[in-house]
Amino acid sequence: MPAITNEIVVLEEGSVTLPKGFVAGGMHCGIKRKRLDLGYIVSDVPAAVAGVYTTNIFQAAPLLVTQESIAKENKIQAIIVNSGNANACTGEQGLSDAFEMQKDFAEQLGIQQHLVAVTSTGVIGELLPMERVKAGINQILKPEFESEENFKKAILTTDTCIKQVAVQMKVDGKTISIGGAAKGSGMIHPNMATMLGFITTDANIAHDDLLLALKDITNQTFNMITVDGDTSTNDMVLVMANGLAGNDQLTKNHPDWEVFTKGLKMVSEELAKKIARDGEGATKLVEVEVNGALTHDAARAVGKSIISSNLVKTAIYGTDPNWGRIVTAIGYSGVPVEPNAIKVSIGSYKVFENGLPCPIVEEEVKEYLGLDTVKIIVELNQGEYSATAYGCDLTYDYVKINASYRT
Amino acid sequence: MPAITNEIVVLEEGSVTLPKGFVAGGMHCGIKRKRLDLGYIVSDVPAAVAGVYTTNIFQAAPLLVTQESIAKENKIQAIIVNSGNANACTGEQGLSDAFEMQKDFAEQLGIQQHLVAVTSTGVIGELLPMERVKAGINQILKPEFESEENFKKAILTTDTCIKQVAVQMKVDGKTISIGGAAKGSGMIHPNMATMLGFITTDANIAHDDLLLALKDITNQTFNMITVDGDTSTNDMVLVMANGLAGNDQLTKNHPDWEVFTKGLKMVSEELAKKIARDGEGATKLVEVEVNGALTHDAARAVGKSIISSNLVKTAIYGTDPNWGRIVTAIGYSGVPVEPNAIKVSIGSYKVFENGLPCPIVEEEVKEYLGLDTVKIIVELNQGEYSATAYGCDLTYDYVKINASYRT
Repeated sequence: MPAITNEIVVLEEGSVTLPKGFVAGGMHCGIKRKRLDLGYIVSDVPAAVAGVYTTNIFQAAPLLVTQESIAKENKIQAIIVNSGNANACTGEQGLSDAFEMQKDFAEQLGIQQHLVAVTSTGVIGELLPMERVKAGINQILKPEFESEENFKKAILTTDTCIKQVAVQMKVDGKTISIGGAAKGSGMIHPNMATMLGFITTDANIAHDDLLLALKDITNQTFNMITVDGDTSTNDMVLVMANGLAGNDQLTKNHPDWEVFTKGLKMVSEELAKKIARDGEGATKLVEVEVNGALTHDAARAVGKSIISSNLVKTAIYGTDPNWGRIVTAIGYSGVPVEPNAIKVSIGSYKVFENGLPCPIVEEEVKEYLGLDTVKIIVELNQGEYSATAYGCDLTYDYVKINASYRT
Repeated sequence: MPAITNEIVVLEEGSVTLPKGFVAGGMHCGIKRKRLDLGYIVSDVPAAVAGVYTTNIFQAAPLLVTQESIAKENKIQAIIVNSGNANACTGEQGLSDAFEMQKDFAEQLGIQQHLVAVTSTGVIGELLPMERVKAGINQILKPEFESEENFKKAILTTDTCIKQVAVQMKVDGKTISIGGAAKGSGMIHPNMATMLGFITTDANIAHDDLLLALKDITNQTFNMITVDGDTSTNDMVLVMANGLAGNDQLTKNHPDWEVFTKGLKMVSEELAKKIARDGEGATKLVEVEVNGALTHDAARAVGKSIISSNLVKTAIYGTDPNWGRIVTAIGYSGVPVEPNAIKVSIGSYKVFENGLPCPIVEEEVKEYLGLDTVKIIVELNQGEYSATAYGCDLTYDYVKINASYRT
């Protein structure tokens, strides 16, 4: 039976425990001085899982452990995550520490070790304080730490706020929920930023289809954000689908496939935008929409070139309608654009067309650039493809945060 | 007769008029409020010329005019340059303005129009105030404006200092001089930064050989600097060789070819380093030396990845020995490195080896990072190729300068 509605309800306050059968929690185990630094998500039953991981050649130990474990049966039942220490560039000891986190948490849960995913974020190149981490894992399932709020806080590093969203829709007449939480603020750049994304759903869907959907959606969402062009060693997005909503298994042929993937994309996009907006030192979200490209890759490349430009980012911070820097960034994107065919707008203000600047009332555009969300629209007039890139402005505070992060 | 010495003498205070038969000058014509904004170099006789130009698809009008003119006989006798306005994204009017600058200066000199190169740097997308520019060109050859110092100042924009160097060597027993001046501070990134480089020499060398040498040297010098990753619309390096030193024509078979190209490289490298050191807001020069790469391109890619990382740059500004960010930048460079084979040093302090951090005395490395020149050395241990990239730290002042440059 096809679904009678494809309406998707967005729940801004929803997150990873909205879907049936998921619990989450978090605590302070002592990696950080005061803030929460250890968290978990657990499903009542093993869940189909799909993951995407950093392309950085120095993949951190927990990513190696998680990928190896997922490969066993494409299912996990739990995720343990720490912040404050990335367990990256930590050699054999780091790998053994990640396995130990996995083993300890599996023992606490009474499940097989490979059903636990391990993720870490924070400083690179320092060994985890394993005594504290182990002590934490031994206690973390206590009821006082069970709290979605705690989980969302426990994954943060330089983030200034938690990032969450959830959606609900009907599939086979059953309500399906998809909930997400993410962290990420610095070292943010495709592909996969210093970014951890956790998405849960009670949908019934097999691993292969879930992975297909996630990869496609990641390229349009998480991989289109940049804060500083630095691709971290630890990025990962995991989706767990435990099937407890009771729908017929979702496949590409299921009549509700589209609404489900649309919902998954909405969650991913919203988390991605929230990460970009909370970029280190950022005062605003910048969206760059590129239309009329010859290929999807070309649209993405132009968008990323603009969103990554320090000069564009500082101009936006200074509410300076310096379209010349936008045009320059298009020009060095590597895409063979046609200079005279390009149109550039800042919000609804057309600033460049036919190879020439357009007359603008500078004060009006300055005022627009002062808003907390700024949109740049580029029309290449070459083809049919579009992409949107997300980022933020570059500010004094970015420098401040990063000149003194570690010490 | 082969030269009896290949000693190259560096003259820190030398510049474009050290070689025989070159004069230079500069004045204020009114593009900028107060500072000098119009300059020239003139050779007594037509000089073989070689140029390299920005790869940005939005090449500015003066670059189009200059390339077209040079193509005619591969010689020029003069360069006219303005700062404060890039004459980029200015359409047909901009092109006609650039031709007019060329024509006016050629008339003043009584030479053919195509023997004049035109270059501009400054704000993008505004038309040149041609009345002032023309009035300036009509007067600029007056003796009171003839001054190498004036020329070096007239090419600057956000630069905080002039950039110059010269070398001398013997070729066929004749003294040959190579002198250079450059500008560049922001929008600096390979290939060809917002950077103008002017190099003169009295060597006798044909266009083809000069171009060959310049292209090779540019890839190792000017194209290895980055300030902010933004490749401008106006970058150009021009070398004029007027032959007045009287040496036998230099070719690849000339016994002194190597010493000449070495001298040309020294001038280019010194100018490139001075541009990097004077990067907008920079407090220091950062050199990244990469050794042991499988190819030259791989060495360059790793070096540029590190020198372009905002996180590395802010860490250096904060004198934070955050080698994790260096390793991360190697990891996302796109080069298939072998993580456990890599060694990273900050100055003489080894910080990373065998996939693990090395013990350091943090205060010692912090002190080193406080110097005005900082060197990062990466050993990939894969092959024979090396490259050095030049850049600077990322500071509050970079943000300040670029948040309010135009307005």
